[in-house]
Amino acid sequence: MKARSGGPLIAVIGNGLEDDSLNSLAEQTGYLLAEAGCVLVNGGLGGVMRASARGAKSKGGLTIGLLPGLDPAAANQYIDVPIATGLGEMRNLLIVRSAAVVIAIGGGYGTLSEIALALKASKPVVGLKTWEVSTDITRANDAPEAVRASLSFLKSRL
Amino acid sequence: MKARSGGPLIAVIGNGLEDDSLNSLAEQTGYLLAEAGCVLVNGGLGGVMRASARGAKSKGGLTIGLLPGLDPAAANQYIDVPIATGLGEMRNLLIVRSAAVVIAIGGGYGTLSEIALALKASKPVVGLKTWEVSTDITRANDAPEAVRASLSFLKSRL
Amino acid sequence: MKARSGGPLIAVIGNGLEDDSLNSLAEQTGYLLAEAGCVLVNGGLGGVMRASARGAKSKGGLTIGLLPGLDPAAANQYIDVPIATGLGEMRNLLIVRSAAVVIAIGGGYGTLSEIALALKASKPVVGLKTWEVSTDITRANDAPEAVRASLSFLKSRL
Amino acid sequence: MKARSGGPLIAVIGNGLEDDSLNSLAEQTGYLLAEAGCVLVNGGLGGVMRASARGAKSKGGLTIGLLPGLDPAAANQYIDVPIATGLGEMRNLLIVRSAAVVIAIGGGYGTLSEIALALKASKPVVGLKTWEVSTDITRANDAPEAVRASLSFLKSRL
Repeated sequence: MKARSGGPLIAVIGNGLEDDSLNSLAEQTGYLLAEAGCVLVNGGLGGVMRASARGAKSKGGLTIGLLPGLDPAAANQYIDVPIATGLGEMRNLLIVRSAAVVIAIGGGYGTLSEIALALKASKPVVGLKTWEVSTDITRANDAPEAVRASLSFLKSRL
Repeated sequence: MKARSGGPLIAVIGNGLEDDSLNSLAEQTGYLLAEAGCVLVNGGLGGVMRASARGAKSKGGLTIGLLPGLDPAAANQYIDVPIATGLGEMRNLLIVRSAAVVIAIGGGYGTLSEIALALKASKPVVGLKTWEVSTDITRANDAPEAVRASLSFLKSRL
Repeated sequence: MKARSGGPLIAVIGNGLEDDSLNSLAEQTGYLLAEAGCVLVNGGLGGVMRASARGAKSKGGLTIGLLPGLDPAAANQYIDVPIATGLGEMRNLLIVRSAAVVIAIGGGYGTLSEIALALKASKPVVGLKTWEVSTDITRANDAPEAVRASLSFLKSRL
Repeated sequence: MKARSGGPLIAVIGNGLEDDSLNSLAEQTGYLLAEAGCVLVNGGLGGVMRASARGAKSKGGLTIGLLPGLDPAAANQYIDVPIATGLGEMRNLLIVRSAAVVIAIGGGYGTLSEIALALKASKPVVGLKTWEVSTDITRANDAPEAVRASLSFLKSRL
């Protein structure tokens, strides 16, 4: 019996608004994370959350959505495991806490809060076209670079 | 691409203390839930939590552990996706909120709080040798009966 | 300058439904807690929550309401400090955590969850016409007895 | 009987590290908020949290500390009502949710997360020597200006 089949959890955070360019980045990031054997965790809704989950599922990955509300049906269709927290924006910190590395793609104030909470918790943050609030964020220029940086953080923790 | 591969979430709650008789019930319950295509969610630690996850994994099921602390490595080895909430006992309510049905097996005060929170949220609770605090708890005498009752709650919600 | 003017926090928990007999107990309990220099913390809504706060205010006490929703205006008029948690029933555990002693008066499933969480946290619980789920609950027959028991728990912790 | 004696809740957020210049701003801000009849809510620890509470108490104000841990004794001595949340950094969002206006003074990543969560919740944020991440933050140059801006937000909500 293979235990802990899930692989390491990587969070992809970003806006729920639809933006073709960011969604494309998110989808590719999700795909590459699944290819590397990682579990994707995100907020379970639209925009970057849906796109990253779609990418992960297209490569057979596992996707976890930590939803702000109480209805699991609010999760987008690419989320395997919708977890209805009922915590509102407070679920942002659960996403950060559950992940070994946080990849931020674009994003509004919710994403900024997640970045700040991750940095406060000394968790590695990789940024793709996101808030430039700290040199503690590892900048990436495209999805492959973001995933490579995330995997190297994972390796350095072993 | 198969979306939402996870299946419905069923919580198995119970004590972290080791009790052969309860662990045996929990393991069989986990096995039968996996056989029925359900995702197991529990508190990720020992006792009933470890036994139910071991049962689910032995049938190839998916297991989610919502941990009280911040270290995912605290999860037992049968948890595929350890979610480190850092919420302490408050994670009990997350377990209840995330599940469509709650199966309580034995249990101490933590389990009692989860039962009460589930009943308060009008969530179906199936009880196996657990607290007898309400006729709203559906009694089961063994694991097959508990899983059958849970599946029939799922069906009635469709 | 007098520091920490608040006094010890005592929680009064119970149903939001209106019941004259329980409300009368709650009001007297709130009054006696204020007289003893304690700060009252409760869930901020109706029934036992409103009655206990009314009792505390009639003796000039300080009252804190930890609300389930996001609107502080939902607090009853006897709450001095409404704290809108947005946590739903999860705020029950905050009430328990914030208090040195928990007094349970009557109550439904929400109250049962608070009692269980308090017992799990080894916090003293005093019960007035409430759930009889454990001998760890200190039984009281009336409000003066409940407050005396609570104060003696406070003293034993000094 | 005077109900709701507490007055509106205003949060002062900022770093726990000691910085004479920021502490001086925080103390003056706390004093002026108390003078205006506001209740101060903050994270209950050191630095800006202690200084703002000291200022409020020196004018007879009421101070609420939402602590990250489980021990109310961790609160600084100027906190009247220490609420031990056990939520870690997640208590930051409780501070934001409980307040009608958020005043940010200096601050590190924790403060940045609180600012972002407040902006996400469309709650007014007044900034004193703090993160310049958004034009939605109302800039103030000194404590009187910050308190005036906060009070005018309160008035506009009536």
